[in-house]
Amino acid sequence: MSGRLAIIGLGPGNVDQITPEAQDEVARAAHFFGYKPYLDRLELRPGQTIHPSDNREELDRAKAALDLAAGGQDVAIISGGDPGVFAMAAAVCEAIDDGPQDWRDVDLKVVPGITAMLSVAARIGAPLGHDFCAISLSDNLKPWEIIEKRLEACADAGLVMAFYNPISKSRPWQLGRAFEILREKLSPETIVIFGRAAGRPDEKMTYSTIRDAEPTQADMATCVIIGTSETRMIEREGRDPLIYTPRSYSGSISGLVTGLAPGAVK
Amino acid sequence: MSGRLAIIGLGPGNVDQITPEAQDEVARAAHFFGYKPYLDRLELRPGQTIHPSDNREELDRAKAALDLAAGGQDVAIISGGDPGVFAMAAAVCEAIDDGPQDWRDVDLKVVPGITAMLSVAARIGAPLGHDFCAISLSDNLKPWEIIEKRLEACADAGLVMAFYNPISKSRPWQLGRAFEILREKLSPETIVIFGRAAGRPDEKMTYSTIRDAEPTQADMATCVIIGTSETRMIEREGRDPLIYTPRSYSGSISGLVTGLAPGAVK
Repeated sequence: MSGRLAIIGLGPGNVDQITPEAQDEVARAAHFFGYKPYLDRLELRPGQTIHPSDNREELDRAKAALDLAAGGQDVAIISGGDPGVFAMAAAVCEAIDDGPQDWRDVDLKVVPGITAMLSVAARIGAPLGHDFCAISLSDNLKPWEIIEKRLEACADAGLVMAFYNPISKSRPWQLGRAFEILREKLSPETIVIFGRAAGRPDEKMTYSTIRDAEPTQADMATCVIIGTSETRMIEREGRDPLIYTPRSYSGSISGLVTGLAPGAVK
Repeated sequence: MSGRLAIIGLGPGNVDQITPEAQDEVARAAHFFGYKPYLDRLELRPGQTIHPSDNREELDRAKAALDLAAGGQDVAIISGGDPGVFAMAAAVCEAIDDGPQDWRDVDLKVVPGITAMLSVAARIGAPLGHDFCAISLSDNLKPWEIIEKRLEACADAGLVMAFYNPISKSRPWQLGRAFEILREKLSPETIVIFGRAAGRPDEKMTYSTIRDAEPTQADMATCVIIGTSETRMIEREGRDPLIYTPRSYSGSISGLVTGLAPGAVK
Protein backbone atom coordinates (compact mmCIF):
# COMPACT_ATOMS: atom_id res chain seq x y z
CA MET A 1 0.00 0.00 0.00
CA SER A 2 1.46 3.27 -1.12
CA GLY A 3 1.67 6.32 1.11
CA ARG A 4 2.03 10.00 0.60
CA LEU A 5 4.88 12.45 0.10
CA ALA A 6 4.37 16.21 0.50
CA ILE A 7 7.21 18.50 -0.53
CA ILE A 8 6.51 21.59 1.52
CA GLY A 9 7.79 25.14 1.04
CA LEU A 10 8.07 27.05 4.32
CA GLY A 11 8.78 30.39 2.64
CA PRO A 12 11.49 32.81 3.77
CA GLY A 13 11.47 31.78 7.43
CA ASN A 14 9.00 34.09 9.09
CA VAL A 15 6.06 32.07 10.43
CA ASP A 16 3.69 34.78 9.13
CA GLN A 17 4.76 33.88 5.60
CA ILE A 18 3.94 30.16 5.83
CA THR A 19 0.69 29.39 4.01
CA PRO A 20 -2.16 27.55 5.78
CA GLU A 21 -1.78 24.83 3.12
CA ALA A 22 1.83 24.25 4.22
CA GLN A 23 0.85 24.28 7.92
CA ASP A 24 -1.87 21.69 7.26
CA GLU A 25 0.58 19.43 5.46
CA VAL A 26 3.05 19.72 8.35
CA ALA A 27 0.29 18.77 10.78
CA ARG A 28 -0.60 15.73 8.68
CA ALA A 29 2.81 14.09 8.10
CA ALA A 30 4.50 11.56 10.38
CA HIS A 31 8.05 11.72 9.00
CA PHE A 32 10.03 14.82 8.06
CA PHE A 33 13.08 14.90 5.85
CA GLY A 34 15.16 17.98 5.15
CA TYR A 35 18.14 20.15 5.85
CA LYS A 36 18.39 20.50 9.63
CA PRO A 37 17.88 24.30 9.87
CA TYR A 38 14.58 23.95 7.96
CA LEU A 39 13.39 21.09 10.20
CA ASP A 40 14.28 23.21 13.23
CA ARG A 41 11.62 25.69 12.15
CA LEU A 42 8.83 23.15 12.63
CA GLU A 43 6.69 22.88 15.74
CA LEU A 44 6.08 19.15 15.87
CA ARG A 45 4.03 17.05 18.23
CA PRO A 46 5.04 13.76 19.87
CA GLY A 47 5.04 10.95 17.30
CA GLN A 48 6.26 13.11 14.44
CA THR A 49 9.80 12.05 13.52
CA ILE A 50 12.54 14.12 11.90
CA HIS A 51 15.22 12.73 9.59
CA PRO A 52 17.71 15.59 9.16
CA SER A 53 20.37 15.55 6.45
CA ASP A 54 23.07 17.81 5.08
CA ASN A 55 22.20 20.38 2.43
CA ARG A 56 24.25 18.67 -0.24
CA GLU A 57 22.48 15.32 0.04
CA GLU A 58 19.28 16.18 -1.83
CA LEU A 59 19.07 13.07 -3.98
CA ASP A 60 19.74 10.63 -1.11
CA ARG A 61 17.18 12.49 0.98
CA ALA A 62 14.62 12.25 -1.84
CA LYS A 63 15.21 8.51 -2.17
CA ALA A 64 14.90 7.86 1.55
CA ALA A 65 11.66 9.85 1.71
CA LEU A 66 10.21 8.06 -1.35
CA ASP A 67 11.15 4.69 0.09
CA LEU A 68 9.29 5.39 3.31
CA ALA A 69 6.27 6.83 1.47
CA ALA A 70 6.13 3.85 -0.91
CA GLY A 71 5.92 1.68 2.20
CA GLY A 72 2.69 3.38 3.21
CA GLN A 73 3.90 6.19 5.45
CA ASP A 74 2.81 9.84 5.50
CA VAL A 75 6.06 11.64 4.69
CA ALA A 76 7.09 15.29 4.23
CA ILE A 77 10.19 16.88 2.77
CA ILE A 78 10.74 20.40 4.04
CA SER A 79 12.20 23.15 1.86
CA GLY A 80 12.89 26.75 2.69
CA GLY A 81 11.31 29.18 0.23
CA ASP A 82 9.55 27.36 -2.60
CA PRO A 83 10.33 23.67 -3.17
CA GLY A 84 10.20 24.11 -6.95
CA VAL A 85 12.93 26.77 -7.14
CA PHE A 86 16.42 25.28 -6.78
CA ALA A 87 15.08 22.97 -4.11
CA MET A 88 13.68 19.53 -3.37
CA ALA A 89 10.80 19.12 -5.88
CA ALA A 90 13.17 18.56 -8.82
CA ALA A 91 15.37 16.21 -6.77
CA VAL A 92 12.32 14.08 -5.92
CA CYS A 93 11.23 13.96 -9.58
CA GLU A 94 14.76 12.92 -10.58
CA ALA A 95 14.65 10.12 -8.01
CA ILE A 96 11.22 8.92 -9.20
CA ASP A 97 12.33 9.01 -12.85
CA ASP A 98 15.28 6.71 -12.12
CA GLY A 99 13.70 4.74 -9.28
CA PRO A 100 11.55 1.62 -8.79
CA GLN A 101 8.03 1.47 -10.19
CA ASP A 102 6.34 1.75 -6.79
CA TRP A 103 7.75 5.25 -6.24
CA ARG A 104 5.44 6.38 -9.08
CA ASP A 105 2.46 5.17 -7.07
CA VAL A 106 3.20 7.50 -4.17
CA ASP A 107 0.61 10.25 -3.72
CA LEU A 108 2.94 13.20 -4.37
CA LYS A 109 2.04 16.78 -3.51
CA VAL A 110 4.18 19.88 -3.99
CA VAL A 111 3.16 22.75 -1.69
CA PRO A 112 4.45 26.08 -2.99
CA GLY A 113 6.01 28.74 -0.77
CA ILE A 114 7.29 32.27 -1.09
CA THR A 115 10.69 32.00 -2.72
CA ALA A 116 13.64 34.18 -1.64
CA MET A 117 13.63 36.57 -4.59
CA LEU A 118 10.00 37.51 -3.92
CA SER A 119 10.58 38.19 -0.23
CA VAL A 120 13.74 40.21 -0.93
CA ALA A 121 11.99 42.18 -3.69
CA ALA A 122 9.07 42.96 -1.38
CA ARG A 123 11.40 44.31 1.32
CA ILE A 124 13.08 46.80 -0.98
CA GLY A 125 10.39 47.90 -3.45
CA ALA A 126 9.81 46.17 -6.77
CA PRO A 127 13.12 45.27 -8.43
CA LEU A 128 11.46 42.32 -10.24
CA GLY A 129 8.80 44.59 -11.74
CA HIS A 130 9.96 43.85 -15.29
CA ASP A 131 11.00 40.64 -17.09
CA PHE A 132 13.51 38.73 -14.97
CA CYS A 133 15.38 35.48 -14.54
CA ALA A 134 16.46 33.28 -11.64
CA ILE A 135 19.87 31.65 -11.90
CA SER A 136 21.63 29.38 -9.43
CA LEU A 137 25.32 30.26 -9.25
CA SER A 138 26.12 26.79 -7.95
CA ASP A 139 28.26 24.82 -10.38
CA ASN A 140 27.82 21.58 -8.44
CA LEU A 141 25.34 20.26 -11.01
CA LYS A 142 26.10 22.24 -14.15
CA PRO A 143 29.33 23.49 -15.73
CA TRP A 144 30.40 27.00 -14.76
CA GLU A 145 30.73 27.87 -18.47
CA ILE A 146 26.97 27.42 -18.91
CA ILE A 147 26.34 29.84 -16.07
CA GLU A 148 28.63 32.41 -17.70
CA LYS A 149 26.76 32.08 -21.01
CA ARG A 150 23.47 32.61 -19.22
CA LEU A 151 24.71 35.69 -17.36
CA GLU A 152 25.86 37.22 -20.63
CA ALA A 153 22.64 36.34 -22.46
CA CYS A 154 20.40 37.71 -19.69
CA ALA A 155 22.43 40.91 -19.34
CA ASP A 156 22.27 41.47 -23.09
CA ALA A 157 18.53 40.80 -23.10
CA GLY A 158 17.86 43.40 -20.39
CA LEU A 159 16.50 40.97 -17.81
CA VAL A 160 16.68 41.61 -14.08
CA MET A 161 18.56 38.69 -12.51
CA ALA A 162 18.07 36.95 -9.17
CA PHE A 163 21.01 34.81 -8.07
CA TYR A 164 20.36 31.84 -5.81
CA ASN A 165 23.22 29.96 -4.09
CA PRO A 166 25.54 32.92 -4.74
CA ILE A 167 28.41 31.84 -2.50
CA SER A 168 29.48 29.20 0.02
CA LYS A 169 32.65 27.89 1.64
CA SER A 170 33.04 25.35 -1.16
CA ARG A 171 32.11 27.87 -3.89
CA PRO A 172 34.02 31.01 -2.89
CA TRP A 173 34.88 32.63 -6.26
CA GLN A 174 31.75 32.22 -8.41
CA LEU A 175 29.92 35.39 -7.33
CA GLY A 176 33.00 37.56 -7.85
CA ARG A 177 33.46 36.10 -11.31
CA ALA A 178 29.78 36.75 -12.08
CA PHE A 179 30.24 40.42 -11.11
CA GLU A 180 33.29 40.62 -13.41
CA ILE A 181 31.28 39.26 -16.33
CA LEU A 182 28.41 41.65 -15.68
CA ARG A 183 30.75 44.66 -15.44
CA GLU A 184 31.58 44.01 -19.09
CA LYS A 185 27.90 44.06 -20.01
CA LEU A 186 26.09 46.48 -17.72
CA SER A 187 26.37 50.18 -16.98
CA PRO A 188 28.63 50.68 -13.90
CA GLU A 189 25.75 52.32 -12.00
CA THR A 190 23.45 49.30 -12.37
CA ILE A 191 21.93 48.58 -8.95
CA VAL A 192 22.82 45.36 -7.09
CA ILE A 193 20.74 44.24 -4.08
CA PHE A 194 22.02 41.86 -1.39
CA GLY A 195 18.95 40.48 0.35
CA ARG A 196 19.87 38.36 3.34
CA ALA A 197 17.34 36.34 5.35
CA ALA A 198 14.39 38.53 4.32
CA GLY A 199 11.64 38.45 6.94
CA ARG A 200 13.79 36.77 9.60
CA PRO A 201 15.25 38.39 12.73
CA ASP A 202 18.73 38.39 11.16
CA GLU A 203 17.49 40.10 7.99
CA LYS A 204 19.98 42.42 6.30
CA MET A 205 19.26 44.36 3.12
CA THR A 206 22.10 46.21 1.45
CA TYR A 207 22.63 47.55 -2.04
CA SER A 208 25.47 48.65 -4.23
CA THR A 209 26.27 49.17 -7.89
CA ILE A 210 27.74 46.56 -10.18
CA ARG A 211 30.89 48.72 -10.22
CA ASP A 212 31.34 48.48 -6.44
CA ALA A 213 29.62 45.19 -5.57
CA GLU A 214 31.79 42.85 -3.50
CA PRO A 215 31.14 39.12 -3.11
CA THR A 216 31.81 39.47 0.62
CA GLN A 217 28.46 41.31 0.86
CA ALA A 218 26.73 37.94 0.29
CA ASP A 219 26.60 34.67 2.19
CA MET A 220 24.70 31.39 1.79
CA ALA A 221 21.47 32.99 3.03
CA THR A 222 21.61 35.85 0.54
CA CYS A 223 19.63 36.29 -2.66
CA VAL A 224 21.43 38.75 -4.95
CA ILE A 225 19.32 40.78 -7.37
CA ILE A 226 20.99 42.54 -10.31
CA GLY A 227 18.99 45.37 -11.84
CA THR A 228 18.98 46.55 -15.43
CA SER A 229 19.77 49.96 -16.90
CA GLU A 230 16.13 50.81 -16.13
CA THR A 231 16.21 49.90 -12.43
CA ARG A 232 15.86 53.02 -10.27
CA MET A 233 16.21 54.12 -6.67
CA ILE A 234 13.81 56.50 -4.91
CA GLU A 235 15.34 58.33 -1.95
CA ARG A 236 13.01 58.88 1.01
CA GLU A 237 13.69 61.09 4.01
CA GLY A 238 13.82 59.04 7.20
CA ARG A 239 13.06 55.81 5.35
CA ASP A 240 15.01 53.22 3.39
CA PRO A 241 15.13 53.98 -0.32
CA LEU A 242 12.85 52.10 -2.69
CA ILE A 243 14.43 50.19 -5.55
CA TYR A 244 12.25 49.23 -8.49
CA THR A 245 12.31 48.29 -12.14
CA PRO A 246 9.56 50.01 -14.15
CA ARG A 247 7.03 47.85 -15.96
CA SER A 248 7.77 49.72 -19.17
CA TYR A 249 10.91 49.55 -21.28
CA SER A 250 12.00 53.07 -22.16
CA GLY A 251 14.99 52.33 -24.40
CA SER A 252 14.93 52.00 -28.13
CA ILE A 253 15.13 48.51 -29.59
CA SER A 254 18.67 48.91 -30.85
CA GLY A 255 19.31 50.65 -27.53
CA LEU A 256 18.79 47.42 -25.62
CA VAL A 257 22.58 47.24 -25.39
CA THR A 258 23.50 50.86 -26.21
CA GLY A 259 26.77 51.93 -24.74
CA LEU A 260 27.48 48.45 -23.47
CA ALA A 261 28.33 45.58 -25.76
CA PRO A 262 27.21 46.51 -29.28
CA GLY A 263 25.66 43.63 -31.15
CA ALA A 264 25.60 41.44 -28.10
CA VAL A 265 21.98 40.62 -28.72
CA LYS A 266 21.48 39.17 -32.15
CA MET B 1 -0.05 63.25 8.83
CA SER B 2 0.96 60.46 6.53
CA GLY B 3 -0.77 57.09 6.48
CA ARG B 4 0.05 53.65 5.30
CA LEU B 5 -0.13 51.72 2.04
CA ALA B 6 0.16 47.92 1.95
CA ILE B 7 0.46 46.25 -1.46
CA ILE B 8 -0.83 42.78 -0.73
CA GLY B 9 -0.33 39.58 -2.72
CA LEU B 10 -3.24 37.14 -2.30
CA GLY B 11 -1.49 34.30 -4.10
CA PRO B 12 -3.14 32.09 -6.72
CA GLY B 13 -6.68 32.42 -5.38
CA ASN B 14 -7.08 29.53 -2.97
CA VAL B 15 -7.60 30.87 0.55
CA ASP B 16 -5.22 28.17 1.86
CA GLN B 17 -2.42 29.84 -0.08
CA ILE B 18 -2.85 33.30 1.45
CA THR B 19 -0.17 33.96 4.06
CA PRO B 20 -1.09 35.06 7.60
CA GLU B 21 0.90 38.24 6.91
CA ALA B 22 -1.41 39.07 3.99
CA GLN B 23 -4.52 38.25 6.04
CA ASP B 24 -3.32 40.53 8.86
CA GLU B 25 -2.78 43.38 6.43
CA VAL B 26 -6.25 42.89 4.97
CA ALA B 27 -7.72 43.00 8.47
CA ARG B 28 -5.87 46.23 9.20
CA ALA B 29 -6.68 48.38 6.16
CA ALA B 30 -9.70 50.64 5.76
CA HIS B 31 -9.59 51.20 1.99
CA PHE B 32 -8.97 48.60 -0.72
CA PHE B 33 -7.94 49.33 -4.27
CA GLY B 34 -7.60 46.75 -6.99
CA TYR B 35 -8.96 44.89 -9.94
CA LYS B 36 -12.52 43.90 -9.07
CA PRO B 37 -12.08 40.08 -9.22
CA TYR B 38 -9.23 40.34 -6.67
CA LEU B 39 -11.30 42.56 -4.36
CA ASP B 40 -14.14 40.05 -4.62
CA ARG B 41 -11.93 37.48 -2.92
CA LEU B 42 -11.76 39.51 0.30
CA GLU B 43 -13.98 38.93 3.29
CA LEU B 44 -14.38 42.46 4.60
CA ARG B 45 -16.16 43.82 7.63
CA PRO B 46 -18.46 46.84 7.81
CA GLY B 47 -16.43 50.03 7.52
CA GLN B 48 -13.89 48.63 5.10
CA THR B 49 -14.36 50.28 1.71
CA ILE B 50 -13.50 48.93 -1.73
CA HIS B 51 -12.42 51.06 -4.70
CA PRO B 52 -12.49 48.67 -7.67
CA SER B 53 -10.89 49.54 -11.00
CA ASP B 54 -10.20 47.95 -14.35
CA ASN B 55 -7.11 45.82 -14.83
CA ARG B 56 -5.53 48.25 -17.28
CA GLU B 57 -5.64 51.21 -14.91
CA GLU B 58 -2.71 50.31 -12.67
CA LEU B 59 -1.03 53.73 -12.57
CA ASP B 60 -4.25 55.65 -11.87
CA ARG B 61 -5.10 53.11 -9.17
CA ALA B 62 -1.64 53.53 -7.61
CA LYS B 63 -2.01 57.32 -7.58
CA ALA B 64 -5.47 57.22 -6.01
CA ALA B 65 -4.26 54.84 -3.30
CA LEU B 66 -1.15 56.94 -2.57
CA ASP B 67 -3.24 60.09 -2.39
CA LEU B 68 -5.54 58.58 0.22
CA ALA B 69 -2.60 57.12 2.19
CA ALA B 70 -0.74 60.44 2.13
CA GLY B 71 -3.84 61.97 3.68
CA GLY B 72 -3.47 59.69 6.70
CA GLN B 73 -5.61 56.70 5.75
CA ASP B 74 -4.80 53.00 6.12
CA VAL B 75 -4.91 51.81 2.52
CA ALA B 76 -4.35 48.50 0.75
CA ILE B 77 -3.84 47.61 -2.89
CA ILE B 78 -4.76 44.01 -3.66
CA SER B 79 -2.85 41.94 -6.21
CA GLY B 80 -3.39 38.37 -7.24
CA GLY B 81 -0.25 36.24 -6.98
CA ASP B 82 2.75 38.31 -5.89
CA PRO B 83 2.54 42.11 -6.12
CA GLY B 84 6.18 42.36 -7.26
CA VAL B 85 5.78 40.15 -10.36
CA PHE B 86 4.07 42.02 -13.23
CA ALA B 87 1.73 43.58 -10.72
CA MET B 88 1.06 46.62 -8.55
CA ALA B 89 4.31 47.10 -6.59
CA ALA B 90 6.19 48.49 -9.60
CA ALA B 91 3.23 50.69 -10.58
CA VAL B 92 3.18 52.21 -7.08
CA CYS B 93 6.93 52.85 -7.20
CA GLU B 94 6.56 54.52 -10.60
CA ALA B 95 3.83 56.76 -9.18
CA ILE B 96 5.95 57.70 -6.14
CA ASP B 97 8.97 58.42 -8.32
CA ASP B 98 7.00 60.92 -10.42
CA GLY B 99 4.63 62.11 -7.70
CA PRO B 100 4.48 64.77 -4.97
CA GLN B 101 6.95 64.72 -2.09
CA ASP B 102 4.39 63.59 0.50
CA TRP B 103 3.87 60.26 -1.31
CA ARG B 104 7.44 59.40 -0.25
CA ASP B 105 6.41 59.83 3.37
CA VAL B 106 3.75 57.10 3.16
CA ASP B 107 4.57 54.01 5.23
CA LEU B 108 4.79 51.56 2.31
CA LYS B 109 4.75 47.81 2.77
CA VAL B 110 4.87 45.17 0.05
CA VAL B 111 3.45 41.81 1.19
CA PRO B 112 4.66 38.97 -1.02
CA GLY B 113 2.43 36.17 -2.27
CA ILE B 114 2.75 32.96 -4.23
CA THR B 115 3.07 33.97 -7.85
CA ALA B 116 1.36 32.01 -10.66
CA MET B 117 4.42 30.24 -12.02
CA LEU B 118 5.16 28.73 -8.59
CA SER B 119 1.61 27.44 -8.11
CA VAL B 120 1.46 26.03 -11.64
CA ALA B 121 4.87 24.39 -11.25
CA ALA B 122 3.81 22.82 -7.94
CA ARG B 123 0.68 21.32 -9.51
CA ILE B 124 2.58 19.54 -12.26
CA GLY B 125 5.93 18.56 -10.73
CA ALA B 126 9.01 20.78 -10.90
CA PRO B 127 9.31 22.40 -14.34
CA LEU B 128 11.17 25.39 -12.80
CA GLY B 129 13.78 23.12 -11.20
CA HIS B 130 16.59 24.63 -13.26
CA ASP B 131 17.50 28.23 -14.20
CA PHE B 132 14.42 30.03 -15.53
CA CYS B 133 12.98 33.36 -16.55
CA ALA B 134 9.63 35.12 -16.25
CA ILE B 135 8.51 37.20 -19.21
CA SER B 136 5.32 39.19 -19.66
CA LEU B 137 4.03 38.78 -23.21
CA SER B 138 2.08 42.03 -22.91
CA ASP B 139 3.36 44.67 -25.30
CA ASN B 140 1.28 47.41 -23.71
CA LEU B 141 4.34 48.85 -21.94
CA LYS B 142 7.28 47.58 -24.00
CA PRO B 143 7.82 47.08 -27.73
CA TRP B 144 7.02 43.63 -29.05
CA GLU B 145 10.47 43.51 -30.70
CA ILE B 146 12.08 43.54 -27.24
CA ILE B 147 9.97 40.58 -26.21
CA GLU B 148 11.05 38.67 -29.33
CA LYS B 149 14.72 39.34 -28.55
CA ARG B 150 14.23 38.07 -25.02
CA LEU B 151 12.48 34.90 -26.16
CA GLU B 152 15.34 34.16 -28.53
CA ALA B 153 18.02 34.93 -25.94
CA CYS B 154 16.38 32.79 -23.24
CA ALA B 155 15.78 29.87 -25.61
CA ASP B 156 19.41 29.99 -26.73
CA ALA B 157 20.58 30.14 -23.12
CA GLY B 158 18.63 27.03 -22.13
CA LEU B 159 16.35 28.75 -19.61
CA VAL B 160 12.90 27.47 -18.74
CA MET B 161 10.42 30.28 -19.46
CA ALA B 162 7.25 31.29 -17.65
CA PHE B 163 4.94 33.56 -19.66
CA TYR B 164 2.68 35.96 -17.79
CA ASN B 165 -0.13 37.83 -19.59
CA PRO B 166 0.07 35.39 -22.50
CA ILE B 167 -3.13 36.40 -24.29
CA SER B 168 -6.18 38.65 -24.01
CA LYS B 169 -8.93 40.06 -26.22
CA SER B 170 -6.78 43.09 -26.98
CA ARG B 171 -3.58 41.01 -27.44
CA PRO B 172 -4.75 38.01 -29.47
CA TRP B 173 -1.69 37.19 -31.63
CA GLN B 174 1.32 37.54 -29.31
CA LEU B 175 1.34 34.03 -27.84
CA GLY B 176 1.08 32.41 -31.27
CA ARG B 177 3.95 34.54 -32.51
CA ALA B 178 6.00 33.56 -29.43
CA PHE B 179 5.41 29.86 -30.23
CA GLU B 180 6.55 30.49 -33.84
CA ILE B 181 9.78 32.08 -32.63
CA LEU B 182 10.45 29.26 -30.19
CA ARG B 183 9.83 26.59 -32.85
CA GLU B 184 12.87 28.00 -34.64
CA LYS B 185 14.97 27.62 -31.51
CA LEU B 186 13.76 24.62 -29.54
CA SER B 187 13.46 20.90 -30.24
CA PRO B 188 9.89 20.16 -31.49
CA GLU B 189 9.31 17.84 -28.51
CA THR B 190 10.02 20.56 -25.93
CA ILE B 191 7.26 20.44 -23.32
CA VAL B 192 4.81 23.35 -22.96
CA ILE B 193 2.56 23.62 -19.89
CA PHE B 194 -0.68 25.61 -19.81
CA GLY B 195 -1.46 26.22 -16.15
CA ARG B 196 -4.83 27.85 -15.69
CA ALA B 197 -6.12 29.13 -12.33
CA ALA B 198 -3.87 26.78 -10.31
CA GLY B 199 -5.39 26.05 -6.92
CA ARG B 200 -8.82 27.47 -7.79
CA PRO B 201 -12.03 25.51 -8.45
CA ASP B 202 -11.73 26.24 -12.19
CA GLU B 203 -8.13 24.99 -12.34
CA LYS B 204 -7.10 23.38 -15.61
CA MET B 205 -3.63 21.99 -16.28
CA THR B 206 -2.80 20.86 -19.81
CA TYR B 207 0.45 20.27 -21.63
CA SER B 208 1.66 19.95 -25.16
CA THR B 209 4.89 20.24 -27.14
CA ILE B 210 6.18 23.40 -28.75
CA ARG B 211 5.44 21.71 -32.10
CA ASP B 212 1.75 21.30 -31.29
CA ALA B 213 1.07 24.11 -28.80
CA GLU B 214 -1.89 26.29 -29.76
CA PRO B 215 -2.51 29.78 -28.34
CA THR B 216 -6.17 28.84 -27.88
CA GLN B 217 -5.02 26.57 -25.03
CA ALA B 218 -4.35 29.72 -22.96
CA ASP B 219 -6.51 32.54 -21.65
CA MET B 220 -5.93 35.56 -19.39
CA ALA B 221 -5.79 33.35 -16.28
CA THR B 222 -3.13 31.03 -17.73
CA CYS B 223 0.57 30.95 -16.96
CA VAL B 224 2.42 29.22 -19.81
CA ILE B 225 5.66 27.40 -18.96
CA ILE B 226 8.07 26.45 -21.75
CA GLY B 227 10.54 23.71 -20.89
CA THR B 228 14.03 23.21 -22.21
CA SER B 229 15.58 20.27 -24.04
CA GLU B 230 16.21 18.82 -20.55
CA THR B 231 12.61 19.04 -19.31
CA ARG B 232 11.12 15.55 -18.89
CA MET B 233 7.79 13.86 -18.30
CA ILE B 234 7.25 10.90 -15.94
CA GLU B 235 4.22 8.77 -16.79
CA ARG B 236 2.33 7.38 -13.78
CA GLU B 237 -0.42 4.78 -13.90
CA GLY B 238 -3.69 6.19 -12.65
CA ARG B 239 -2.13 9.59 -11.92
CA ASP B 240 -1.30 12.72 -13.88
CA PRO B 241 2.22 12.67 -15.28
CA LEU B 242 4.95 14.63 -13.54
CA ILE B 243 6.83 17.24 -15.56
CA TYR B 244 10.18 18.44 -14.27
CA THR B 245 13.45 20.03 -15.28
CA PRO B 246 16.48 18.38 -13.66
CA ARG B 247 18.74 20.47 -11.46
CA SER B 248 21.72 19.34 -13.50
CA TYR B 249 22.59 20.31 -17.04
CA SER B 250 23.51 17.19 -18.98
CA GLY B 251 24.50 18.68 -22.34
CA SER B 252 27.99 19.68 -23.35
CA ILE B 253 28.80 23.38 -23.39
CA SER B 254 28.81 23.67 -27.15
CA GLY B 255 25.78 21.40 -27.03
CA LEU B 256 23.70 24.11 -25.35
CA VAL B 257 22.15 24.67 -28.77
CA THR B 258 23.10 21.42 -30.50
CA GLY B 259 20.78 20.53 -33.33
CA LEU B 260 18.89 23.77 -32.96
CA ALA B 261 20.36 27.08 -33.99
CA PRO B 262 24.12 26.64 -34.26
CA GLY B 263 26.06 29.54 -32.86
CA ALA B 264 22.96 31.15 -31.40
CA VAL B 265 24.74 31.58 -28.09
CA LYS B 266 27.91 33.58 -28.47
